[in-house]
Amino acid sequence: MPIPKLRQNKERRQRLLECAIDLFSEKGYFNTSVREIIVKSGFGTGTFYNYFCDKEDILKTLLEEFADQIISGHSTYYTTEKDLYKRFVETKRVTMEIFAQNEKLSEIYSRVAGTSEAIDNCLKQFEDKLIEFYTRNIEYGINKGAFTNVSVPPIANAILAVEKFLLYKWVVLKDITKEEMVEMVISFHETLAKGLVNNK
Amino acid sequence: MPIPKLRQNKERRQRLLECAIDLFSEKGYFNTSVREIIVKSGFGTGTFYNYFCDKEDILKTLLEEFADQIISGHSTYYTTEKDLYKRFVETKRVTMEIFAQNEKLSEIYSRVAGTSEAIDNCLKQFEDKLIEFYTRNIEYGINKGAFTNVSVPPIANAILAVEKFLLYKWVVLKDITKEEMVEMVISFHETLAKGLVNNK
Repeated sequence: MPIPKLRQNKERRQRLLECAIDLFSEKGYFNTSVREIIVKSGFGTGTFYNYFCDKEDILKTLLEEFADQIISGHSTYYTTEKDLYKRFVETKRVTMEIFAQNEKLSEIYSRVAGTSEAIDNCLKQFEDKLIEFYTRNIEYGINKGAFTNVSVPPIANAILAVEKFLLYKWVVLKDITKEEMVEMVISFHETLAKGLVNNK
Repeated sequence: MPIPKLRQNKERRQRLLECAIDLFSEKGYFNTSVREIIVKSGFGTGTFYNYFCDKEDILKTLLEEFADQIISGHSTYYTTEKDLYKRFVETKRVTMEIFAQNEKLSEIYSRVAGTSEAIDNCLKQFEDKLIEFYTRNIEYGINKGAFTNVSVPPIANAILAVEKFLLYKWVVLKDITKEEMVEMVISFHETLAKGLVNNK
């Protein structure tokens, strides 16, 4: 029985994404060509261009799906925990564990910043998606009266900034272990959450 | 009257550093060669190697002196403000204004991360120097009983992470203005400081 068209499409797209992750991680994003991704996948050139325009499009897609994975990890956690202080702190563990489980993609994310405008735009889309999500969660806490009425964008940006910085220390510099990374992110958010919760 | 040797040495070193900043900022760090720095300075090749081993050594020196400038900006502020909460928040304005006044160097710092091990080491030295300084200041606040007895490294790392991330949004992405950058850093630290101060 032939594989249904839709499933085949999905599988091919997925294979191209995985080949790209492997090559970007092994050789670096800049030293990888679309040609090499195609060769590794075993597909023809036409197949690649059915799914992606170019190398940046692959990176953008990888990061977009990565952001979706993080957001969906939070949503799953929300169904089990209703306390907003605990949620604020413990969802950071969820995020960092998703980063840790996707070590290759985390390293690609940590290494490509600042090198070209096209890349900066890919990263910006990924980061803005997470920052918007963090913003909505903090606003929810403020609306529920659990958090004080602070300016939200500085906090939402700071959350990602700290996650990104400690991720870089683990995955690029190897200066801290995975466990230290998670614990430092959590410890910081405990202090931040104390400044954020409404004690009235 | 001839210029004293020591002063001449200092001026030459300074000129080489300034030529390097200009070139790194115009053409990017990776697209600049030592040769071009020498040509721009008007000195002979030997003069360059009297002061620096290579291009990375120039970057390391630039960042080291940048960190010293930030630390000395804090120290000056300390002489005028004794309240530890205000110090914790307002010294971040000092830092961000030094970053803003050194726009070219800030952009170089924001763009080079993650691209090679040698560069990562230059950045690490700069960042560790600032993180150690932040660590000592928080420990001072804890010892004085002004701050709660939290784990300090996560906070010290977070401070630099937030400064770095918002600097990148201003100087690379042009996503926020200089004033927004400073205000976001301050606003975040006000919330963090509330979590940090001892309300006993």
